[in-house]
Amino acid sequence: MAAIAYVNGHFSPIEQAVVSVEDRGFQLGDGVYEVLRTYGGRLHAMEAHLRRLFRSLEAIELKHPYTPAEIERIIRECVQRAGLVEALVYLQITRGAGKRSKEFPQGVSPTLVITVREFEPRPPALRANGARIKTARVLRWQRCDIKSICLLPNVLVFNRAKAGGYHEAVFVEDDETITECSAANIFIVKRGRIATPPKSTRILGGVTREEVIALAGKHSLPLEERPVALAELRGADEVFLTSTTIEVLPVTQVDEEPIGVGKPGPITQRLYELLRASVA
Amino acid sequence: MAAIAYVNGHFSPIEQAVVSVEDRGFQLGDGVYEVLRTYGGRLHAMEAHLRRLFRSLEAIELKHPYTPAEIERIIRECVQRAGLVEALVYLQITRGAGKRSKEFPQGVSPTLVITVREFEPRPPALRANGARIKTARVLRWQRCDIKSICLLPNVLVFNRAKAGGYHEAVFVEDDETITECSAANIFIVKRGRIATPPKSTRILGGVTREEVIALAGKHSLPLEERPVALAELRGADEVFLTSTTIEVLPVTQVDEEPIGVGKPGPITQRLYELLRASVA
Repeated sequence: MAAIAYVNGHFSPIEQAVVSVEDRGFQLGDGVYEVLRTYGGRLHAMEAHLRRLFRSLEAIELKHPYTPAEIERIIRECVQRAGLVEALVYLQITRGAGKRSKEFPQGVSPTLVITVREFEPRPPALRANGARIKTARVLRWQRCDIKSICLLPNVLVFNRAKAGGYHEAVFVEDDETITECSAANIFIVKRGRIATPPKSTRILGGVTREEVIALAGKHSLPLEERPVALAELRGADEVFLTSTTIEVLPVTQVDEEPIGVGKPGPITQRLYELLRASVA
Repeated sequence: MAAIAYVNGHFSPIEQAVVSVEDRGFQLGDGVYEVLRTYGGRLHAMEAHLRRLFRSLEAIELKHPYTPAEIERIIRECVQRAGLVEALVYLQITRGAGKRSKEFPQGVSPTLVITVREFEPRPPALRANGARIKTARVLRWQRCDIKSICLLPNVLVFNRAKAGGYHEAVFVEDDETITECSAANIFIVKRGRIATPPKSTRILGGVTREEVIALAGKHSLPLEERPVALAELRGADEVFLTSTTIEVLPVTQVDEEPIGVGKPGPITQRLYELLRASVA
């Protein structure tokens, strides 16, 4: 029962798992990834993650020999070998290792890396008190819908927010609309109505985002996918974030100002409970 | 006399050099790089490359224990061990290996990788005939002036150009000005006057670009650093690209149309000869 890594067919402890210094993931950010988790030993939303993975692979024209079924089989074997009940699964596919060149390499096999480790839940106090988030101007490339490993802009924005005592950063476009956070999608609630920015090339279509939208529909909570202005974010009654790891997380402060009364709101709490119930 | 890799103090053949699958360069694009070359065994423009490297490290807030003198010493040792007269030196520094998180890791040492291999000159026919380049809409993040390893946008644009029979892609902004190519800076010549887009967050300040600007000044060739419209590129008498590896390379076609008479021009040739003379 331990963290485990898989690299192109080989299993090892994570600390022993290596790739070539000339892997295109290491030198060029030339790859895509997914993060999944288990609930009680069961892999959650496998199909949605696989669908997005293959969409990302196609979007960056990464030729590979895998079928979704084969990737699923490998993921399941990794989780089984790790033997963890609450596990975090990280999967990355790069265009492989070869002499550095921007040109797609010929005769090179892609690199498939999977790591599985214990899932570490966020501190209960964070969920109880809500997160503080900071606005950040756009900095990223134009295809945020591809789950690529070119994440330095997200890393920088996240850490600048963190340095100011915030838990996340939310991206603001030049037209003063918001898109998403460095590692989560974002929703607002105003007078009982939920809104989240629509999918576009500026937003990564989160699996948990889709689940929350479906749950809202199922339980007759009014929800719109539409552009959300920064001013609407600031003036919202409730704000929450979604991702595979944070699930549904309340936000209680944006920049210097509280959201609503500065406490997690009831619709956020309801959706969190609905999500937990749906995965149980 | 062989290609060689250096990884945090260890030398090996390149094919044996590895990094952790959890290196932040591999999972997050969290690093910066430089490419240098030797001429006749002598490292070219070392100071300029080191200055830019330390600027990049500072721009991404990557804490490290190195001084420029220490990096220079390691590079020189790598080149000496490789024993190559015409060598291409690739250097990359990442924020190190640690459990994947957007947050800057604590207590983690950066990863310094250097590879040295034989420099392969471009085919003489390419220089004689000039390159064909393709225009591409912007796709990249907002800090192109940082030499980061988040290069997937450049990889994609380059390969789409290549698939169309082009040698390079030139980025066009929303305001219809051009910035740079996927792996080179760009210059135009019109009625004897040279122009190149000014340094900004949209452009990587190339070492060879600076050398060409200095050579033009020294030899009284009129040159302006100013915004260059796509229409000016298309209507130029001459176009050329600069980089450490291609030096000064003529461009004879942009998209479907020839540049000038479709042959390398005299000012391009002059600057190439001046550059070669200056490094000799």
